[in-house]
Amino acid sequence: MTLSWTEQASDGAARAGTLRTAHGDVATPVFMPVGTAGTVKAMLPDAVRATGARLILGNTYHLMLRPGADRVERLGGLHKMMDWPGPILTDSGGFQVMSLSGLRKLDADGVTFQSHIDGSRHRLTPQSSIEIQHKLDATITMAFDECTPFPATEAEARASMELSMRWAARSRDAFVPRPGYGLFGIVQGSVFPALRASSAAALIGIGFEGYAIGGLAVGEGQAMMFDVLDDTVPALPATAPRYLMGVGTPDDLLGAVQRGVDMFDCVIPTRAGRTARAYTSRGVFNLRNARFADDTGPLDPACACPTCTRHAVGYLHHLFRCEEILGPMLLTWHNIFYYQTIMKELRSAISTSTLSQRAASLRAGWAEIAEHG
Amino acid sequence: MTLSWTEQASDGAARAGTLRTAHGDVATPVFMPVGTAGTVKAMLPDAVRATGARLILGNTYHLMLRPGADRVERLGGLHKMMDWPGPILTDSGGFQVMSLSGLRKLDADGVTFQSHIDGSRHRLTPQSSIEIQHKLDATITMAFDECTPFPATEAEARASMELSMRWAARSRDAFVPRPGYGLFGIVQGSVFPALRASSAAALIGIGFEGYAIGGLAVGEGQAMMFDVLDDTVPALPATAPRYLMGVGTPDDLLGAVQRGVDMFDCVIPTRAGRTARAYTSRGVFNLRNARFADDTGPLDPACACPTCTRHAVGYLHHLFRCEEILGPMLLTWHNIFYYQTIMKELRSAISTSTLSQRAASLRAGWAEIAEHG
Repeated sequence: MTLSWTEQASDGAARAGTLRTAHGDVATPVFMPVGTAGTVKAMLPDAVRATGARLILGNTYHLMLRPGADRVERLGGLHKMMDWPGPILTDSGGFQVMSLSGLRKLDADGVTFQSHIDGSRHRLTPQSSIEIQHKLDATITMAFDECTPFPATEAEARASMELSMRWAARSRDAFVPRPGYGLFGIVQGSVFPALRASSAAALIGIGFEGYAIGGLAVGEGQAMMFDVLDDTVPALPATAPRYLMGVGTPDDLLGAVQRGVDMFDCVIPTRAGRTARAYTSRGVFNLRNARFADDTGPLDPACACPTCTRHAVGYLHHLFRCEEILGPMLLTWHNIFYYQTIMKELRSAISTSTLSQRAASLRAGWAEIAEHG
Repeated sequence: MTLSWTEQASDGAARAGTLRTAHGDVATPVFMPVGTAGTVKAMLPDAVRATGARLILGNTYHLMLRPGADRVERLGGLHKMMDWPGPILTDSGGFQVMSLSGLRKLDADGVTFQSHIDGSRHRLTPQSSIEIQHKLDATITMAFDECTPFPATEAEARASMELSMRWAARSRDAFVPRPGYGLFGIVQGSVFPALRASSAAALIGIGFEGYAIGGLAVGEGQAMMFDVLDDTVPALPATAPRYLMGVGTPDDLLGAVQRGVDMFDCVIPTRAGRTARAYTSRGVFNLRNARFADDTGPLDPACACPTCTRHAVGYLHHLFRCEEILGPMLLTWHNIFYYQTIMKELRSAISTSTLSQRAASLRAGWAEIAEHG
């Protein structure tokens, strides 16, 4: 049996459920830390597990360039190579080809591009992307698509979406089903409701184990992103997991969960962890700020992570000021832990039908940023 | 009662014993990982403990500049600030003032210098160095001395050593005894046996809880360093711990233990961990070497650390090639673990009077470097 998702509770449009995979179960809504090149940056795998994370993401574009899909396969696949026996989702590589690589040429069958690292030439097609993700041993494989740039005219968005739907069918054909593994399709269509509906219908016609919403968080803003979710989520199957790609801030996650999204990934908590930005129950802080130098209190009094329970803010400030590696290590741990804490609270609130109260309380906390940020 | 050391076994000149401190017991011979600016670089404190390390070193020079001794004190002292409840030894700052700082002026009472970070002016004297180490809450405080440069004429070395001996007496006067804390004197005298003997006698006359041998590993080479140990160690009290400062490679540690040294510190395992150099039972490897890209075996098959038991060499190579922070994290862990493993094996060999056999076996392993390095 392929990967499956079961709903356990709902509160409004929000759902709590369980994703069952070959590499273990995952409670949803879930946030996936990003392990770009085969490592969640600045985190030992045991530490990632200790944050409560159960599902992580790997980037096909980065891994196909270094160390290379064949080499990952020779090293036993991503799970063994990283020491992450839990489930891993890999993206298709398409998004980063367009955002990171050098000269690139899109045609009806795929995209040819130059590596941003050494200029070497590569090609990705629906077939080759799926094959690479197979070699990586991805628990969840993503269909190869074009992430429509923003803004786009309706005609541009339609052409791009229709290309992605043809590629979605080829991705489905190329995918080798294995028990507990699955393939997700990706809804495109930019900010045009009719195109999103058409894309969702096309994907449902093909049939996937899960449905992602792509082409968002690309500059359209939170309000427009939520509008697209309001239009698109109801068009997706109630029995399959829904994944909003590349999102987002804690407030983005909350709003999307309230609209029925089950899965998220984003570099925010890891990248912020390396740049001294702390995500907390009281808002976002920059730990380089000199006013933290003598702060003997914890980063977040409400947080149970080792960074908050064992160290003073003044020490974290010192580590970043001295550019000590331990600064990113401790803050990345906290940020991922905090993201996992939010998701745990949302799952609990959905199960007890108290999501709107929990949402109000979370937002009130984050608003304290005005006093601290 | 101040800090004490008890011998439990001996094998030739080598001793195994226990250092009893206010922050816990430490089995000797012991290697101290260096926690320069209040962190053992790229290591969480729990990870440092997991390597078997029980005593770490902090640098007074770095800490007095950032975050500052008063600030460390406000943050609860080094133990609390770092989350290292175990014993900590701090150096006096003298060595790094001479090696790192800008314009500096030595006089009979101390040294005035400019910070290498921002050019700010500071002064260290025996009194202020001891006071700073008190604020840091050092379990073991080092007397303030001048590390005699190498090479030095006998006249230069004598003048420098005699200055250090006057400062040793002032350091003793400035030190506030507390139960389980201690002050170590530092033998100087460069490579001149008569000066070393005179320095040792002067320190014994003052009286310290331990005796360090300074001014070595500064370019004189291993053979000359061992000659100095052969002359100096027998001149030190049999009942006090002996500490060889800033040493060294695994082979340096072994030779010095065989000559009766009990304590060591060195940046080698941590610095090498950040520059892809692996210290192993088979010698030293540079993990950036392309021949490791497809190596599916462990870094050191004889090693029980998480890096060796959970990851392939090919993955470590990949992490360093991509400049992922996890590379330094995993390799620093291994290198410190390996250093602790050596010390544990030496303690065990001393206790079973098998040190010469163990030494031969360790050296034979390290010689494999010729095949791998």
